[in-house]
Amino acid sequence: MSTISIIGTGNMARTIGARAVAGGNTVEIMGRDQSKAADLATTLGGGTTTGQWGTAPAGDIVIMALLHDGVLPVVTQYADALAGKVIVDISNPFNSTFDGLTHPEDTSIAQEVANAAPADATVVKAFNTIFRHVLETGRPDVFIAGDNAQAKTSVETFIESLGLRPLDVGDLKMAHWLEGAGLVTVGLANHGVGNLNFALSITELPT
Amino acid sequence: MSTISIIGTGNMARTIGARAVAGGNTVEIMGRDQSKAADLATTLGGGTTTGQWGTAPAGDIVIMALLHDGVLPVVTQYADALAGKVIVDISNPFNSTFDGLTHPEDTSIAQEVANAAPADATVVKAFNTIFRHVLETGRPDVFIAGDNAQAKTSVETFIESLGLRPLDVGDLKMAHWLEGAGLVTVGLANHGVGNLNFALSITELPT
Repeated sequence: MSTISIIGTGNMARTIGARAVAGGNTVEIMGRDQSKAADLATTLGGGTTTGQWGTAPAGDIVIMALLHDGVLPVVTQYADALAGKVIVDISNPFNSTFDGLTHPEDTSIAQEVANAAPADATVVKAFNTIFRHVLETGRPDVFIAGDNAQAKTSVETFIESLGLRPLDVGDLKMAHWLEGAGLVTVGLANHGVGNLNFALSITELPT
Repeated sequence: MSTISIIGTGNMARTIGARAVAGGNTVEIMGRDQSKAADLATTLGGGTTTGQWGTAPAGDIVIMALLHDGVLPVVTQYADALAGKVIVDISNPFNSTFDGLTHPEDTSIAQEVANAAPADATVVKAFNTIFRHVLETGRPDVFIAGDNAQAKTSVETFIESLGLRPLDVGDLKMAHWLEGAGLVTVGLANHGVGNLNFALSITELPT
């Protein structure tokens, strides 16, 4: 069991929150609008609590369930309140034509979060290749990247509690390519697959 | 049935050639070393021919089965001999630490090939996310990208003849992100999966 704080009260917060509660985790919701946070906590049930925006989250793992351009400002605002936390960045910084990212090649939202976060916080990229409704109803593989092995292990334990398979792709630098894999996923939805009812995954060879 | 020319005589040439012959396609091998090309043609059987290095390939589809730093020089050398062809780039231009590409963010080997190729040639990125032995023995999904719909259709027909599923991710600009997906695949092999016996793929939601 993990203790999770979710920053955000939108669709991804609700989806991850519901799976987290179902998986037996302790969940806290933090919203800029306290009444929205309280509503979501009630919806999620299972003892879900709310925390006050900008203060230290109760969870060991803090999931930034925000639009990509909101992540960095909120991490900067929280500042030392995130000390010692495992911060999970799930965002996808796509350009308007969905064939590139909004930041340069040598970085990623996840790396920028790591730069802005307290020195003893750690960042793990995860969940960004998964369409929300697939995360809600399916069993998608969850690709993760991060520099800290202990932080990745704690996120893997959380992902497994959701009944999902975590798949480590390497260091946080790989977050850039996971964000690119998000673009590939959108490209597949718009072209070769033609719908949103799938997830990027791995298929193992029959042995 | 497609007519295929494979430029190269190494492991990927042999693997793709074997599947192409098994799929009922007409295959030609072109090697800088004519005797190696002849040996591979004999190995492949099924009426596989050889062509003379640097001259117009017999196949409508020309697969560049070369190491990534060889692709562009060979396309430049072939020059107008590639007029009208569908050129398939399968290469992965990885840096030495396997967390970045050897070219800038705004391009890809596939786009560089398109720039170097005759104006009426078209380029499709394909096969680059698949480990060679998985292509030999497995049924991996084959992600493709390209700007020309007709060229993509012909490559898709070829891929289907191999018993594999082609999955279009979009325009040739997406080749950059497919090359990044190659990095993700290597990252998975080195971390979360721990072996090479898998392929990046899609999993559809149960309905």
